[in-house]
Amino acid sequence: MKLASYKDGSRDGQLVVVSRDLTTAHYANGIATRLQQVLDDWNFLSPQLEELSISLNHGRARHAFPFDPAMCTAPLPRAYQWADGSAYLNHVELVRKARNAEMPENLKTDPLMYQGGSDDFLGPTDLIHVPSERMGIDFEAEIAVVTGDVTMGTPADRAIDAVRLVMLVNDVSLRHLVPGELAKGFGFFQSKPSTAFGPVAVTPDELGAAWQGGRVHLPVHVAWNGKRVGLVDAGPEMSFHFGELIAHMAKTRNLRAGSIVGSGTVSNADASRGYACIAEQRARETIAHGEPKTEFMRFGDTVRIEVKGADGQSVFGAIDQAVATPD
Amino acid sequence: MKLASYKDGSRDGQLVVVSRDLTTAHYANGIATRLQQVLDDWNFLSPQLEELSISLNHGRARHAFPFDPAMCTAPLPRAYQWADGSAYLNHVELVRKARNAEMPENLKTDPLMYQGGSDDFLGPTDLIHVPSERMGIDFEAEIAVVTGDVTMGTPADRAIDAVRLVMLVNDVSLRHLVPGELAKGFGFFQSKPSTAFGPVAVTPDELGAAWQGGRVHLPVHVAWNGKRVGLVDAGPEMSFHFGELIAHMAKTRNLRAGSIVGSGTVSNADASRGYACIAEQRARETIAHGEPKTEFMRFGDTVRIEVKGADGQSVFGAIDQAVATPD
Repeated sequence: MKLASYKDGSRDGQLVVVSRDLTTAHYANGIATRLQQVLDDWNFLSPQLEELSISLNHGRARHAFPFDPAMCTAPLPRAYQWADGSAYLNHVELVRKARNAEMPENLKTDPLMYQGGSDDFLGPTDLIHVPSERMGIDFEAEIAVVTGDVTMGTPADRAIDAVRLVMLVNDVSLRHLVPGELAKGFGFFQSKPSTAFGPVAVTPDELGAAWQGGRVHLPVHVAWNGKRVGLVDAGPEMSFHFGELIAHMAKTRNLRAGSIVGSGTVSNADASRGYACIAEQRARETIAHGEPKTEFMRFGDTVRIEVKGADGQSVFGAIDQAVATPD
Repeated sequence: MKLASYKDGSRDGQLVVVSRDLTTAHYANGIATRLQQVLDDWNFLSPQLEELSISLNHGRARHAFPFDPAMCTAPLPRAYQWADGSAYLNHVELVRKARNAEMPENLKTDPLMYQGGSDDFLGPTDLIHVPSERMGIDFEAEIAVVTGDVTMGTPADRAIDAVRLVMLVNDVSLRHLVPGELAKGFGFFQSKPSTAFGPVAVTPDELGAAWQGGRVHLPVHVAWNGKRVGLVDAGPEMSFHFGELIAHMAKTRNLRAGSIVGSGTVSNADASRGYACIAEQRARETIAHGEPKTEFMRFGDTVRIEVKGADGQSVFGAIDQAVATPD
């Protein structure tokens, strides 16, 4: 099933079930009002939502209405955890090579992950507010999952069973703040403003055969100011699958239902597939020509991120955002 | 007023108002069931809780019962944000000096802060579960505040007005995992397991004159295995006050109601005041003798952290935890 949260003036939005083809929606009234509520009590509530989802997909839901992604908050407008990995090692290697940094010895066995702010997420068409263009405004197209409860010490092969939902992410980044923040060792903090999410969160079964080995084997379409810059495959080059990322997080503590786990920027070794974040393109340019050529986003720029299934249909709906121009 | 959350089998606990002297409590029934709910709608709900608090303090609340800290979860058993600073520069300087690390140039103008996991907090008497003694189990006695909504770009002098509640923290740390994690630049992650909180959260007015300049001017009592190891003053040596920490967090994004902001380990330059975390004592030993003498916590060890007001009464109740011995 596909779930979204509609803007209703509240902090958590109003839960709606969305049809597989993203054309119609139905309030989850009588079952649950908020998505977190469903995650808190998944085994009881999700079968009821599944039933509504089936009715909706068959055109039999009584109060269906046309689905409008512009009405969506993030599926979870706020969450109790947002931890993001760098699971595509091609990206890590390019960025480090460009700045002549050493590759960490255990890069291939120990996932890079940071804890992000999760109190104020953006919806798929919300404006990106940044204090200054000089901060190096960048997008990052990613896949994320939402977990149920995970006990400390759960191994990767069992951790993958905790995945409840899959989402699309724009992990907005302020690149010129990153070096200073990482040098302090304490994580990205100011260099990661509010993260944006695609309109709908989907259960893994909606991905069919594309959900395999803890990865989403589908292409991510990325367009910047209306021009395609990336058509990157989220599947085979994800060096750590979601079960491994969740197990990494749960090594020294429990995770509670509703934890969001990100893949990091999707990245492919084949440069002809383009890029899912500007920093990666700049890294390629630096490696080839000694300096970057592509500039970061400007106020008013737009980014569109979408994943299409084997049938050509949009899986999560599109993230379609503009960087706000200050008043 | 003083607020706590009682264990009731739910994920958020049951909101109770606690008397100033911590002897009696009263369910906040009819006003709010969860603390986050109050933070979400502070201006409407907090005056009603204040009224109940006044009745309780005057012995006039009709269904008051004896307050039991062992019944408490963390005031917020889960939160949308937990960001922790290192605002006591004496601690930062000692730890870095001990490992012959350079002091960052902008240490005195740019606060060190990391984003922590906020999905699974411990109550004041909950066991601390750690996979292995060899991870270097440590406590950290800290003060934290809970904020209301804060708009991006709010300056420190106005950010301080967003403080709704003050709390006591044990920021449990796994010291032997810290160097590896910080070397990756992405923050503490695995080296910070679940954080524990004192029984009650208090509004700043409960601190009277001790709440001044965005700091809590009171001593923090720290005992390890029943022996006092620290009586450190949380006030004058907090180099960045809470308004400055909140403003630092809000530089590139909004903070939403219920964000928890920590001070970092309380630390005093005067060594005779003892320590609020073992790492600091080991740093002093290393500076003096070339190596640390004090070992970290073992399974079964206990830590007790408490703040007493000018009247000698416990302000937040005590954090009183043991490290669990694995089955």
